[in-house]
Amino acid sequence: MTVSVFDHPWLGGLFGDAEMAAILAPERQMAHMLAFEAAWSRACGKAGLFDTEKAEQAAQTIEGARIDLADIAAGMAEDGVPVPRLVGQLKAIAPAGAVHTGATSQDVVDTAMVLTLREASDLIAARLADLGTLFDTLDARFGDTPLMGRTRMQAATEITVRDRILAWRLPLADHLARLGQIRPRIERVQIGGASGDRKALGERGDAVVADIAGTLDLAPTGKAWHAMRDGLAEYASFLSLITGTLGKFGQDVALMAQQGIEEIALSGGGGSSAMPHKQNPVSAELLVTLARFNAVQVSAMHHAMVHEQERSGTAWALEWMVLPQMLMATARALDTAHSLGGTITGIGKS
Amino acid sequence: MTVSVFDHPWLGGLFGDAEMAAILAPERQMAHMLAFEAAWSRACGKAGLFDTEKAEQAAQTIEGARIDLADIAAGMAEDGVPVPRLVGQLKAIAPAGAVHTGATSQDVVDTAMVLTLREASDLIAARLADLGTLFDTLDARFGDTPLMGRTRMQAATEITVRDRILAWRLPLADHLARLGQIRPRIERVQIGGASGDRKALGERGDAVVADIAGTLDLAPTGKAWHAMRDGLAEYASFLSLITGTLGKFGQDVALMAQQGIEEIALSGGGGSSAMPHKQNPVSAELLVTLARFNAVQVSAMHHAMVHEQERSGTAWALEWMVLPQMLMATARALDTAHSLGGTITGIGKS
Amino acid sequence: MTVSVFDHPWLGGLFGDAEMAAILAPERQMAHMLAFEAAWSRACGKAGLFDTEKAEQAAQTIEGARIDLADIAAGMAEDGVPVPRLVGQLKAIAPAGAVHTGATSQDVVDTAMVLTLREASDLIAARLADLGTLFDTLDARFGDTPLMGRTRMQAATEITVRDRILAWRLPLADHLARLGQIRPRIERVQIGGASGDRKALGERGDAVVADIAGTLDLAPTGKAWHAMRDGLAEYASFLSLITGTLGKFGQDVALMAQQGIEEIALSGGGGSSAMPHKQNPVSAELLVTLARFNAVQVSAMHHAMVHEQERSGTAWALEWMVLPQMLMATARALDTAHSLGGTITGIGKS
Amino acid sequence: MTVSVFDHPWLGGLFGDAEMAAILAPERQMAHMLAFEAAWSRACGKAGLFDTEKAEQAAQTIEGARIDLADIAAGMAEDGVPVPRLVGQLKAIAPAGAVHTGATSQDVVDTAMVLTLREASDLIAARLADLGTLFDTLDARFGDTPLMGRTRMQAATEITVRDRILAWRLPLADHLARLGQIRPRIERVQIGGASGDRKALGERGDAVVADIAGTLDLAPTGKAWHAMRDGLAEYASFLSLITGTLGKFGQDVALMAQQGIEEIALSGGGGSSAMPHKQNPVSAELLVTLARFNAVQVSAMHHAMVHEQERSGTAWALEWMVLPQMLMATARALDTAHSLGGTITGIGKS
Repeated sequence: MTVSVFDHPWLGGLFGDAEMAAILAPERQMAHMLAFEAAWSRACGKAGLFDTEKAEQAAQTIEGARIDLADIAAGMAEDGVPVPRLVGQLKAIAPAGAVHTGATSQDVVDTAMVLTLREASDLIAARLADLGTLFDTLDARFGDTPLMGRTRMQAATEITVRDRILAWRLPLADHLARLGQIRPRIERVQIGGASGDRKALGERGDAVVADIAGTLDLAPTGKAWHAMRDGLAEYASFLSLITGTLGKFGQDVALMAQQGIEEIALSGGGGSSAMPHKQNPVSAELLVTLARFNAVQVSAMHHAMVHEQERSGTAWALEWMVLPQMLMATARALDTAHSLGGTITGIGKS
Repeated sequence: MTVSVFDHPWLGGLFGDAEMAAILAPERQMAHMLAFEAAWSRACGKAGLFDTEKAEQAAQTIEGARIDLADIAAGMAEDGVPVPRLVGQLKAIAPAGAVHTGATSQDVVDTAMVLTLREASDLIAARLADLGTLFDTLDARFGDTPLMGRTRMQAATEITVRDRILAWRLPLADHLARLGQIRPRIERVQIGGASGDRKALGERGDAVVADIAGTLDLAPTGKAWHAMRDGLAEYASFLSLITGTLGKFGQDVALMAQQGIEEIALSGGGGSSAMPHKQNPVSAELLVTLARFNAVQVSAMHHAMVHEQERSGTAWALEWMVLPQMLMATARALDTAHSLGGTITGIGKS
Repeated sequence: MTVSVFDHPWLGGLFGDAEMAAILAPERQMAHMLAFEAAWSRACGKAGLFDTEKAEQAAQTIEGARIDLADIAAGMAEDGVPVPRLVGQLKAIAPAGAVHTGATSQDVVDTAMVLTLREASDLIAARLADLGTLFDTLDARFGDTPLMGRTRMQAATEITVRDRILAWRLPLADHLARLGQIRPRIERVQIGGASGDRKALGERGDAVVADIAGTLDLAPTGKAWHAMRDGLAEYASFLSLITGTLGKFGQDVALMAQQGIEEIALSGGGGSSAMPHKQNPVSAELLVTLARFNAVQVSAMHHAMVHEQERSGTAWALEWMVLPQMLMATARALDTAHSLGGTITGIGKS
Repeated sequence: MTVSVFDHPWLGGLFGDAEMAAILAPERQMAHMLAFEAAWSRACGKAGLFDTEKAEQAAQTIEGARIDLADIAAGMAEDGVPVPRLVGQLKAIAPAGAVHTGATSQDVVDTAMVLTLREASDLIAARLADLGTLFDTLDARFGDTPLMGRTRMQAATEITVRDRILAWRLPLADHLARLGQIRPRIERVQIGGASGDRKALGERGDAVVADIAGTLDLAPTGKAWHAMRDGLAEYASFLSLITGTLGKFGQDVALMAQQGIEEIALSGGGGSSAMPHKQNPVSAELLVTLARFNAVQVSAMHHAMVHEQERSGTAWALEWMVLPQMLMATARALDTAHSLGGTITGIGKS
C-alpha cells in the first residue's frame, strides 16, 4: 500500500493515470537501467575495452537478468543509489570484466531516466494534440454562441464562446512547440564515469558514447551532464506550464458551472454523500489542484540545480522525489481535461 | 508498483519509514473512517436521531465491514471523495436509516485524517525525544573536544563540539513545545453535515458532537472547521521546521566529513559503483534532501488555505497530495538523524 | 525609485502599508542596530570588559551617531553584512576600546531584526483584534440572514451568513493565540560573538547578555541562536497563516460579488478604463494575491533553516530578501480585509 | 525608503544592479505605457477609428505628457490598475475622442511589460555571453590544472579544472539558445479591449494591431493573450534556470574556498566585524542565495497561470509582485558571477 495519491487504492481512482504509471513503473525503470548496462558492455566490447565476446555474453545475460529488488532496496539505504547492488548482481552472473567498468551510478540512473522522459514526452505530445483537437471540436460546435465576458470576476462585455475556448486552446500549440525545442536538450546519454570525466574510457570515450547513444536512440554528448541539471529543471517547468493552462480551463469550467451563472452544461459530475442529486464539477476542480501541485513542485526542481561539485547526492535525490509526481500530475491533467471537455454538452447562452 | 519514493521497491529502501507508513496505510485510514461512521451511528442512536437499537447494530456492522476498495476507487473519479461509495456499501449491509445520515464526506475524511495525525504526532514526539537523548549522549562524550568554528564556510575561531551540537539539539526541545501547543488545534472532530452548519442534527448537535468526540478521544468543536484549514497549514509548517533542523544537522555532517576537513568520523557510509572504497555520507545528504522537500511542500499547504465557500474540492485535494508525504519525510528524517548520530564515532579535533 | 510593489510610486498605492513600512524603514532598522551597539557598550562597561566611563561615553555617542549609509552600502558588497563598516564609523567617533568588541555582525543584525519583529507583532496583534471586532459587527448585523451554502462551487443547502462569517472570524482568534505562543521564541537577544560561543565575554557572558536583554526588553538566551532559525521560519509560517485566512475571505467575497450570484453588496470598488461603470472587487482580489504571495515566500524561510555551521551567509541573506516582504504583505492584507469588511453593506439574501 | 533588498539604502549595495534597475524603473515603465497609448492613438487615427489629425495631436501630447504619479497611486487602491487614472490624465490634455478608446488596462500594462522584458532580455543575453567568455578565459588559463573530483561531497578521482569549469560554462550556451526560442513567445503586443475580443476595433482590428506592433517593434498577435500567461511563466522559469546554474558555480566556489580544501584563490572577499582578517566568499554565497530566491519565486509565476476567465486581477497582481524581483535577482547573479570569476587568481592544485 502507499501514501501516494497516484497509486493509492482508492485515491488513485481520482489521481491515477495508467499510461503514465506504466512508463514510470519500477520494472520499466529497471529495464532502462539494464538496457544501459547491456549497451555499455557491448560498446566497451566493440571499443576493445572489454573482451568482445565476453562483452556480448554479458550484454545478453544482463538483458535477461532477473533482479533481486529487495537486495537493491537494502543497498539504497547504504549507497544512496541502486547501482552498486545492481552491478553486484550482474557481475555475479555475467563474464568477469565485462560489466559496468568505466561507468558510474549516475550514468545508469540518469540515462535510464532520460529513456523514461522520452516515453513520457511521447505520451504528453499525443495528449496535447488530442486535447487540441477536442477544443477545436468544441469551438466548431459552440464557438459562435454568445458568452458574457468576465474580467476580475465581474461581468464585462459579451464575447463569444470561441474567445473563451481560444484561451484554453492556443497555449496547447505553444506547449507542443516548446516540447519540440526541449527534447533535444533532454534526450542525451549521460556518460561520465567516476568523476564525470570519462577518464576510464581513455581515447575510446567518443566511440563508446556514440555507440551507446546509437543503441539507445539518444543523442551523444561531448561531456557528462551529471552536474548540469538545467535541462531537467526546464522540463519540469514545461510540465507545470501544461498543468497551468489546464488549471485555467478547470477554473473557468468550475466558475461557469455555478448556480446563478450556468454558462456550461456538463453530463455526469460527482455525487455527494449528503446531497445525492448535487452534481459536483470534480474534474474541473482536479485540474486546478493539479496545476497548483505542479506550481509548487517546480520549485524543488529549480532548487535541485544547485548541484555541488561533480555529483550532489542531495540535489539528485530531490529530483527523484518530485519529477515522477510532476509527470503523473501532468498526464492525469491532460487526461482529465480531455474527459471533462468530452462531457461539455453546452457552453454560453444559447 | 508506485511512483512514490516512500514505497518504491528499491528507492523505498532509502526513503521509506515503516512506522509512519503503517500510520498512513490505506487500511488504517479506512479503519479511521469506519470508526467515525460507527461513532456517528451510535451517537445519533443515543441522541434519538436514529433508532437506538438499529444504530448499535449498524455500528457493529460498520466496525466489522469488509470494504470493496475497487468500488470506492471507481467512485473517486466521479465524486472526488470516497464517502458516497463507502456509505453506499455500509447502507447495503446495515439497518436502514442508521448510517451516516446528517453527516457529510468532509466529516468522515477530515476526522479520519485527524486520527491519523494524532498517531503521527505521537510517533514524532517520541522520535524528537529520542534524538534529543542521542545528541545529549554525543555531547557528553565529545562536547569538550575543540572544533574549528566556521562562519560563511570559512574557518573562524575555535569553539567546542558542544557549541556545534547545541545548534542541532536545542531546536528539538522547541519542536516538542510547539507540538504541545499545536495538537489541541488539530485533534478536534470535524462535524458539519451538508453545508457545515449541523442543521440536520437540530438541537441534538452539541450532544452528538460531544459523544463522537468522546468516543474518538478528540476535542469537540462548536463549529465545523471544514473551510478553516489554518490548523493543518500550521501542522505542515511544524513538520518542515523539524526537517529544517535536521537538514542543518545533515549539512553540517556532510561538510565535516569532507577530505581535508575531517572533523567527524562515521562508521558505515555508502559505497560507489565506480569507487568501491569511497564512503559517502548518504544519510547526511538525505537529511538535506528531506529538508528541502518539506520546505517546498509546505507552500502547497499554505495555498490550500484559500478554501472557497463551505468546501473547496480543489484546495482539499491538494492537501491529500502533500501532507502524507510531509509526514513520511519528517519521520524518515527523524529516523535517519538518529541512525546517523549513532554512527558518529568521533567529532572535532581530538 | 524601486522595483518593489510595496513602495513603488503607483503600485504602492495598492500594495503599500504605511504603518508596517515605518516599522521596516531602514532608518528604524539602523536605530535598532545602534540601540544594540549602545547597549553592548554599556553592558560591557558594567561587566568590566570595557572601561566603564568610556563605555557610557561610547553608548551616548552611538545613540547620537549620524551614519553614512553610502559607506555601509559600499561595504555590503564586500562584507555581505553592514556591520563592519558601521562599527568602523562608530569607532571613528567613540572612545577607543569601547565599541562592539566581543560581538559579531549577526548579533547586531539579528537582534535588530528581533526588535523590528516585536513592533511588527504588536501591529499585527492589534489588527487581528480589530478585524475580529469588525467581523463580529458584521455577524451581529447580518448573521441571521439566509445564504446559500456552496460546496465544491455548487449550491448545497441553505445556511446563514453567520456560518460563512465564522469561517473568516474564528481563525483570527487562533492566530492571536499562536502569536502569544510564538513571541517568546522570537523576542530573544542574539549574542554569540565571533563563532557564536561568547568566548570573548569569558565569565561575564551571562551578565552581559542579561544586561543587554534588560535594556532592549528582550529575553536573555543561554546560547546564541545564530544557526538555529526555526523561530524565524515559524514566524514566517504564522504570517502566511494569517494571509491564508484573509485570502479565503477575499476569495469568498469575490465569488459572492459575481453577477448572477450577488450575495454581497459592497460600497465602492474599482473602475475599469474600458468600462467606467463596472465595479471590480479589487480589495477582495488583493487578499487572494497576498495569500498566494506569502504561501510562496514561506518556502524560502523554510529553506533558510539549512544554515550551515556557525553562520551561513547564504541562508541568512535569503531571509533578508523575503521576511520583510512577508510582513508587508501580511499588514497590507489585514488592513485590506478591514477596509473591505467596512464596505460590506449587505450579505446574503435579505 | 524601501523594504526591498534590491534598492535598500545599504542592502542594495549587495543586491542592487544598476542596469536592470534602470530597465525596471517606474519612469521607464511609464514611458512604455505612454508609448503604447501614443501608438494606439496613431494606429486608430490611421485606421479611421479616431480623427486622424486629432489622433496625431493626441499621440504627440501623450509622448510629452507629465504624469501625476500620486494621482495614479491613489487610483491603484480603487482600480487595481494604473490605467483608468492615467487615461483620465491623458484625456484631460489631449483632443477629445483620440485617446485609449477601444483599449483596456491590460493592453497597456502587459504591452509595457513586454517592452521591459525585451530590454531585460538584451541585458541578460549580453551578460550570458560575457560570462561565457570569462569562463573560457579561466578555462584557457587553468583548465589543464589537476583538481580533485568530488562526488557526494567526498573526494573521488582526480579530474582537471576544465571538467569543473565546463559544468559552469556549458549551460550558459543552452541558456542563450533558450532565450532565442522564448523571445518570440514573449515579445508580442497585447491588444484585446474590454473583454479581450477586440470588438471595439471592428474590422480594423488586424490593421490596428499590425500598426502598433510595427511601431513598438513587437510581433502582432491574432488574439489577445490576456488570459494565457504561459509565456510569462516560461520566461520566469528561464530566469531561474540561469540563477540555478550560477548558484551551482557559487556553491562550488564556496566549497573550494574552505580552509583544508583550498582549491581556489580569490582576490578580495568580505571582512568580518569580529575577525578583520577573515576573507569571506561573499559573492559565492550571494549566488546561492539568488538561486534559491528565484527557485522559490518561480512557483508564484506558475500559480499565476490559473488566470480565471478573461482577466484575473488576482493572478495578474501576483506577477507584478514577483517578476521584477526575479529579473533583478538574475541580473545581479550574472553580474556577481562575472565579478567573482574575475577575482579567481588560481584554481586546482598547481
